[in-house]
Amino acid sequence: MSAEPKEGTSLSMSPTLTTHPYDDDHLREECGVFGIYGPEDSAALVALGLHALQHRGQEAAGIVAFDGRQFNAHRALGQVADHFSSEKVIDRLSGHAAIGHVRYSTAGETVLRNVQPLFADLEFGGFAIAHNGNLTNAYTLRRGLVKRGSLFQSTTDTEVITHLMATGSGTVVDRLVQALRQVEGAYSLVALAHDRVIGVRDPLGVRPLVIGKLGTSHILASETCALDIIGAEFVRDVEPGEIVVIGSNGIESLRPFPQQKKRFCIFEFIYFARPDSVVEGTSVYDARKRIGAELAREAPSDADVVIPVPDSGVPAALGYAEEAKIPFELGIIRNHYVGRTFIEPSDHIRHLGVRLKHNANRAMIQGRNVVLVDDSIVRGTTSRKIVEMIRHAGAKQVHMRISSPPTAHSCFYGIDTPEREALLAYKNDADSMAKLIGADSLAFISIDGLYRAMGMPRRDPALPLYCDACFTGDYPIPLTDRSDGRPPAQLSLLTESA
Amino acid sequence: MSAEPKEGTSLSMSPTLTTHPYDDDHLREECGVFGIYGPEDSAALVALGLHALQHRGQEAAGIVAFDGRQFNAHRALGQVADHFSSEKVIDRLSGHAAIGHVRYSTAGETVLRNVQPLFADLEFGGFAIAHNGNLTNAYTLRRGLVKRGSLFQSTTDTEVITHLMATGSGTVVDRLVQALRQVEGAYSLVALAHDRVIGVRDPLGVRPLVIGKLGTSHILASETCALDIIGAEFVRDVEPGEIVVIGSNGIESLRPFPQQKKRFCIFEFIYFARPDSVVEGTSVYDARKRIGAELAREAPSDADVVIPVPDSGVPAALGYAEEAKIPFELGIIRNHYVGRTFIEPSDHIRHLGVRLKHNANRAMIQGRNVVLVDDSIVRGTTSRKIVEMIRHAGAKQVHMRISSPPTAHSCFYGIDTPEREALLAYKNDADSMAKLIGADSLAFISIDGLYRAMGMPRRDPALPLYCDACFTGDYPIPLTDRSDGRPPAQLSLLTESA
Amino acid sequence: MSAEPKEGTSLSMSPTLTTHPYDDDHLREECGVFGIYGPEDSAALVALGLHALQHRGQEAAGIVAFDGRQFNAHRALGQVADHFSSEKVIDRLSGHAAIGHVRYSTAGETVLRNVQPLFADLEFGGFAIAHNGNLTNAYTLRRGLVKRGSLFQSTTDTEVITHLMATGSGTVVDRLVQALRQVEGAYSLVALAHDRVIGVRDPLGVRPLVIGKLGTSHILASETCALDIIGAEFVRDVEPGEIVVIGSNGIESLRPFPQQKKRFCIFEFIYFARPDSVVEGTSVYDARKRIGAELAREAPSDADVVIPVPDSGVPAALGYAEEAKIPFELGIIRNHYVGRTFIEPSDHIRHLGVRLKHNANRAMIQGRNVVLVDDSIVRGTTSRKIVEMIRHAGAKQVHMRISSPPTAHSCFYGIDTPEREALLAYKNDADSMAKLIGADSLAFISIDGLYRAMGMPRRDPALPLYCDACFTGDYPIPLTDRSDGRPPAQLSLLTESA
Amino acid sequence: MSAEPKEGTSLSMSPTLTTHPYDDDHLREECGVFGIYGPEDSAALVALGLHALQHRGQEAAGIVAFDGRQFNAHRALGQVADHFSSEKVIDRLSGHAAIGHVRYSTAGETVLRNVQPLFADLEFGGFAIAHNGNLTNAYTLRRGLVKRGSLFQSTTDTEVITHLMATGSGTVVDRLVQALRQVEGAYSLVALAHDRVIGVRDPLGVRPLVIGKLGTSHILASETCALDIIGAEFVRDVEPGEIVVIGSNGIESLRPFPQQKKRFCIFEFIYFARPDSVVEGTSVYDARKRIGAELAREAPSDADVVIPVPDSGVPAALGYAEEAKIPFELGIIRNHYVGRTFIEPSDHIRHLGVRLKHNANRAMIQGRNVVLVDDSIVRGTTSRKIVEMIRHAGAKQVHMRISSPPTAHSCFYGIDTPEREALLAYKNDADSMAKLIGADSLAFISIDGLYRAMGMPRRDPALPLYCDACFTGDYPIPLTDRSDGRPPAQLSLLTESA
Repeated sequence: MSAEPKEGTSLSMSPTLTTHPYDDDHLREECGVFGIYGPEDSAALVALGLHALQHRGQEAAGIVAFDGRQFNAHRALGQVADHFSSEKVIDRLSGHAAIGHVRYSTAGETVLRNVQPLFADLEFGGFAIAHNGNLTNAYTLRRGLVKRGSLFQSTTDTEVITHLMATGSGTVVDRLVQALRQVEGAYSLVALAHDRVIGVRDPLGVRPLVIGKLGTSHILASETCALDIIGAEFVRDVEPGEIVVIGSNGIESLRPFPQQKKRFCIFEFIYFARPDSVVEGTSVYDARKRIGAELAREAPSDADVVIPVPDSGVPAALGYAEEAKIPFELGIIRNHYVGRTFIEPSDHIRHLGVRLKHNANRAMIQGRNVVLVDDSIVRGTTSRKIVEMIRHAGAKQVHMRISSPPTAHSCFYGIDTPEREALLAYKNDADSMAKLIGADSLAFISIDGLYRAMGMPRRDPALPLYCDACFTGDYPIPLTDRSDGRPPAQLSLLTESA
Repeated sequence: MSAEPKEGTSLSMSPTLTTHPYDDDHLREECGVFGIYGPEDSAALVALGLHALQHRGQEAAGIVAFDGRQFNAHRALGQVADHFSSEKVIDRLSGHAAIGHVRYSTAGETVLRNVQPLFADLEFGGFAIAHNGNLTNAYTLRRGLVKRGSLFQSTTDTEVITHLMATGSGTVVDRLVQALRQVEGAYSLVALAHDRVIGVRDPLGVRPLVIGKLGTSHILASETCALDIIGAEFVRDVEPGEIVVIGSNGIESLRPFPQQKKRFCIFEFIYFARPDSVVEGTSVYDARKRIGAELAREAPSDADVVIPVPDSGVPAALGYAEEAKIPFELGIIRNHYVGRTFIEPSDHIRHLGVRLKHNANRAMIQGRNVVLVDDSIVRGTTSRKIVEMIRHAGAKQVHMRISSPPTAHSCFYGIDTPEREALLAYKNDADSMAKLIGADSLAFISIDGLYRAMGMPRRDPALPLYCDACFTGDYPIPLTDRSDGRPPAQLSLLTESA
Repeated sequence: MSAEPKEGTSLSMSPTLTTHPYDDDHLREECGVFGIYGPEDSAALVALGLHALQHRGQEAAGIVAFDGRQFNAHRALGQVADHFSSEKVIDRLSGHAAIGHVRYSTAGETVLRNVQPLFADLEFGGFAIAHNGNLTNAYTLRRGLVKRGSLFQSTTDTEVITHLMATGSGTVVDRLVQALRQVEGAYSLVALAHDRVIGVRDPLGVRPLVIGKLGTSHILASETCALDIIGAEFVRDVEPGEIVVIGSNGIESLRPFPQQKKRFCIFEFIYFARPDSVVEGTSVYDARKRIGAELAREAPSDADVVIPVPDSGVPAALGYAEEAKIPFELGIIRNHYVGRTFIEPSDHIRHLGVRLKHNANRAMIQGRNVVLVDDSIVRGTTSRKIVEMIRHAGAKQVHMRISSPPTAHSCFYGIDTPEREALLAYKNDADSMAKLIGADSLAFISIDGLYRAMGMPRRDPALPLYCDACFTGDYPIPLTDRSDGRPPAQLSLLTESA
Repeated sequence: MSAEPKEGTSLSMSPTLTTHPYDDDHLREECGVFGIYGPEDSAALVALGLHALQHRGQEAAGIVAFDGRQFNAHRALGQVADHFSSEKVIDRLSGHAAIGHVRYSTAGETVLRNVQPLFADLEFGGFAIAHNGNLTNAYTLRRGLVKRGSLFQSTTDTEVITHLMATGSGTVVDRLVQALRQVEGAYSLVALAHDRVIGVRDPLGVRPLVIGKLGTSHILASETCALDIIGAEFVRDVEPGEIVVIGSNGIESLRPFPQQKKRFCIFEFIYFARPDSVVEGTSVYDARKRIGAELAREAPSDADVVIPVPDSGVPAALGYAEEAKIPFELGIIRNHYVGRTFIEPSDHIRHLGVRLKHNANRAMIQGRNVVLVDDSIVRGTTSRKIVEMIRHAGAKQVHMRISSPPTAHSCFYGIDTPEREALLAYKNDADSMAKLIGADSLAFISIDGLYRAMGMPRRDPALPLYCDACFTGDYPIPLTDRSDGRPPAQLSLLTESA
């Protein structure tokens, strides 16, 4: 969601040109969703599920529950455990059906009115919706809706869906289908209407969404790790283009959209999903180890030790080390107590090279040739710092190996990427990138190597494909808002504090 | 505003049948508004103005400012000084034009999304609006708007106006006129659009709204006391049916509605307005003293001392004492530190008759015949407690005198009144009311006496009238929502916490 | 208490040369105390009693309860209702005996460690103490205690008492008597030891302390209004030099100190005590009216209207108006919603003459000769502003009448007064003060007139005297710390935040 | 510190018999300390240093700085980043010398008055002290001090030191030496007096303390990782029995205590210290790997995969896997977003086996024989849950290997251990422990194996020894408080909230 201009920013500002103060060298999944129908304490289970999905969005969280009579909502900026851990909050979220959402802010100021699930008071009754993905024609649709008199209350693309539903007719599912026929983009949705929980995955299935079961209660979740945390069992993935409706009579499946070829986001395997999740039938941890092993074959290194950049680089580093038969060591120790807003060091202190997040484990580094394994390079800023830290700890040589191809294109399907110009791989080849980050060598897995690690012979349009637009520029869904040349839909500029 | 069902309550529940835990024996003005165009630090002046209007609404406050480029808003539950007193907040509300609002919650749960000014992102740009009053056909209009696809985000009647404007055409003033032509009710509005502050008073002028001036800057405010606090001068009342548009070219006046006979709320003189305000050309303090004097003539008492129920009964008691030539004493001392949420005493303690708000000044009471003067009786609960306290302090006799006629009808024009059944005067005459509150005698000023105190010979439809529906049942504006027999517009029931 | 240097200030800074941002023209009582033995929910009753005593100290409050096994404490900066109104807090303060304290901060930074009751872990067990007054030899004693190895944890003079007790011997009462024999000053104390509540009043009885009864439970309180709030009855004043011990066997009285002539603080009648309290056998409200009447006789005025400076000037103004037969009007309206920390207006706004606390009731003032009645003038800053406000509202003449003699000396017995140099009356006579505050005339009641109003023929050392040092400079207790010429006991300068 | 009875607990309650709600299967280091002299922004550097030491104490933190004129303190319950990350806090902690402390609470209620550094206002001036360790004769000393009239304000053993200093004579260092000659126990102290930062390590050197340097500024810290975070260099360990005084003239060393044989805590290597720290000349990470390898030799296992219990078991598991030539896999994924107070699941949910902290990585476990490596077993509760989780994920066999000998004795030197009775190893051998935790086999490293891994031939009193009392019961420092048979020094029971 939310490729729109953010409140408080000028219209001419690029919507995604924001900086992430605390980790600017990773793409960010923007959302995780969870829904459940059945148990009396459904909100407590949603809170646990969202907690397991916290890696998909850490800046805001929300839950809406339905108790047979009314909807009960709580939304907050911050992490799930900070706001949904008290009995008082959970007790107020009473109901046997509930959905929830975790999200990233992609602008400096996340405002509460943008926190999902969004709630709308439609003609047929209340409706709550939570969205993982991004609509690529949201501006265009919004302009038309505003012209006809719709009042938008948030700057999220998700609200386009509820307005389209408001102007539709028939049942909640009729209206949802009518609305989704008009939108383009990548989306995995969970929605809550009067006594039904609904799940939808876009026709290409770009973002994940799985079905689980706990006793007789059905569950929808972005990843299987959210089923594990509550002891639920995995049933199956929601299929691309499928609408799943869960109610007191169990689960129904609709397929109102024309069949299309699946294009699942390959970056979910590389970085976004949790390693203990099983995504599209594959263990994420195992996939990462296989990618690491393939990387070792494609880009071997005559080094003394393989060191992962924690924590996301660990499985690929293990795969690399096993394949290359080089010892694997935790050469970088991560501080688990990193607050999200630790002191901004003064200039005087900053030049000391303060290491809030990571520290070199000097005993494993000094005097050695090191292979550093990481999952991706976005701007390169963190890579540069880590290479410098490893050198400062006494490494003789530092060889960087990346378990993804160069990220040379922006994502418009729900991942927060910088504008292309900010991507280190946009204008640099591996050698010049190596120089920029200060490594003795730098290698990325090839796109074909990546597909090989995923069990295919190569990237071949004749075979099943992933969405790999960030590596290849092959965008499977039209970028309507981008291509119409006009500025985004006119938005009043409101900053709000509360 | 806000005669609609409140979130978190069932549909069948009467919208106004709420209890006020801390003072259930006064009607409540529901809102105060303030707007200013011109000064650089307009939000700071709005905060001060709202502070002076705090008696018109103590449960929430909001300010929206416009800085030439964007709108900046802050809204909060609580009093003005609690949330708008820090430099940090005021600095963020930058802009040379700003409006603000204080409000009562009429339900146990006030939620932030209902706090005004409401902001809407209309096709022509941003628009903020703050409302004092109540629309009497809001449900009916809302039903139609929802049917055509409008999504409501609050449960306030004010939002009906912005949706009507969204579906209109032309300039912001064109759309506002189009919208107001459709609404019925009592309203004094201030609005903020791109570089204009707008004030409107309904065609009958039920609620007050005045124009002031500070240097070259024009001001709109509910009462003159909000001009005094910033040293501004009073210019004139906004006239019934008038729209005032303030911008960089000064002030313009429009009168798009057909002329009607003014019906100003007489209860503003009796209780709502601050005694130091001048309302409709009359000093409120002076009017209250004259009402007290008239009451002394109509309902004399052979007592030793006149004691006001603080603080609102003081001016009428002074008028009564002067006219009756009986000594005036502060026989009841009010604790100025009463927190709004002081400890709920346990049953054990409660039966002690804890006196958080008032204490009898025994030295002035013991062994005397007392005339107690208050402004009104709603449910009678507080009157009963005060009479009991005065007796407990040793009074020989307690005679209650009320400076308004019996409140026997509900208000639907912006005052929070209980349902008629809860009004003590609904089924009781003065004698039985005296028994119920435990007084030796009880007298109300007559309706004609009240008009006399206001300078007219009597209440006479041939002469100018006030809105006195709460005393007479003569409602000057149709009660469309009430009379259509159907339940209020279907509203999803959402409780929200944040 | 607390005439010591405040933490966070330099040693050379005068301890009392602080400014009070929100009302710098009144002396401030520094504390109120309350204790009760018997009821199960004693802390709830202490909270209510402190609430009634809130006028004696608004910046911090604390309660310590004893439940037969352990002491339970809660202390907080702020008002009673802000911190002691929740069931959660009260429930944790379980116990059948409890004491409490409200206090002013006399420095910009009140720190929690100075909030009373202080708790000490003495050899015989726990001991909590709350103090209203000020010790005049605290530095001297403290120096000796530090020399022998005592570690002070607060900067209050009260802690001197607990350290003296720690170095004593015998029972808690033995030690308390040993300690009090060494201290000089004015004090009304309540203390809590294992199963006993203790009350003490200094040998001159400068500060008030009363005994009350609720059922079978005995109570100690600074004023009778704290008995009224819980429906308790007044028993008698604690006598000067008396120690009262309340326990399971009822109440005992000790008189271990030599008899001295009582010197009760006369300013308690003029300003500090609540008007509904009965102090030393006299109604405060009635005393103030009698002072006002005497003032009218001593300093009549040919005016049209008598206007009190609210709220403390009201009873004296009523007395003045009755005696002078001039109409009494509320010519100044006080805003009851004044937050303690409302926005500091910018320079631009400040010059507008913002009136956060008071507004002139112009209709009662315009074109009239006004007598303004107030209780005292300290620095004169507020008086000047109020006179200016009255003139700005159109008064022809403004005559100021003060219901106390000129305050020309500092208090060292528990009232926060500025250094002498800052007192307007220090170097100015009434005429030059009139000019400084802008009044057409200014008159104070004479010291003999004040004694007359209190029922004596004049101030006569042969007759009973009050402590009137702030008017006469006749200090009845030695000012040891002041006179020893050395700087106050060496104190490390610790600022603390938590 | 803090082996004393905790406030709010009954006297008969064992001081250490507390439960840790969120991780009851690890011993807990109770404190970390940091001090620096020199830089202008010393508090900012202390905050960073404490952040790196956060693993040594997560429930409270404090900093005291000295700015040449006064001491500035901030103490808070919670983590460093939560309370010391704002510019506002750091700016108030101005000064060129500062010390800080992180601590565990060992009772359910940590109260602010126990948070260190403690501050005392001694005769010579202010003095702040922070303590890592525990005094074993604190009660005995405290009894004597109370008898002579000392008033204790906290329940920490640290306060005994400041009271001993208060009753001493001479300079701050003189008094500190006098005080420490009287205390027994394990302690690493940092202290702050007027313009000096002081470090002390007890004569046996049980707890770590290192000297670092940043430019010309000297630093004291519990571990080297706190030097790394600010880019400071390691100079040397403070030696057992050494006092280090840092001031404007640089660093001085004193050795006032008789020489003794060093007994460094071996558990610092096994679990407490951060793996990237160098402790007593040895890399902690490397030591853990060597222990894991020795464990593999002593207790081999014919398994398919070695899985560490994250995060502390990882280095030992790597050492085990390398030595045993069995693949190492992350079979347990830890949720890094675990809040300390996440929702207490209702009974209904709890039985689902909610996994807030860990999730099994099923793909690495299913159908395999698993070796689980952990660092210690205390009560065994977590081990049981983890074994069950691994089995539930499909493991064929689960073999547990522990990189420490059985923990069969309580620690009284600064580690929070349960009473002996609660230790699983107290009455159980390895086989019965295996049954209790549900493992197919369980083995601990032997005490001699542990010494071998640390580079010695065996545990031999003729050779250098560690403090290994928790494994061997060989306590090198007398347990005076324990052995005197009397209950701990009489303490009033005060609970306090603020």
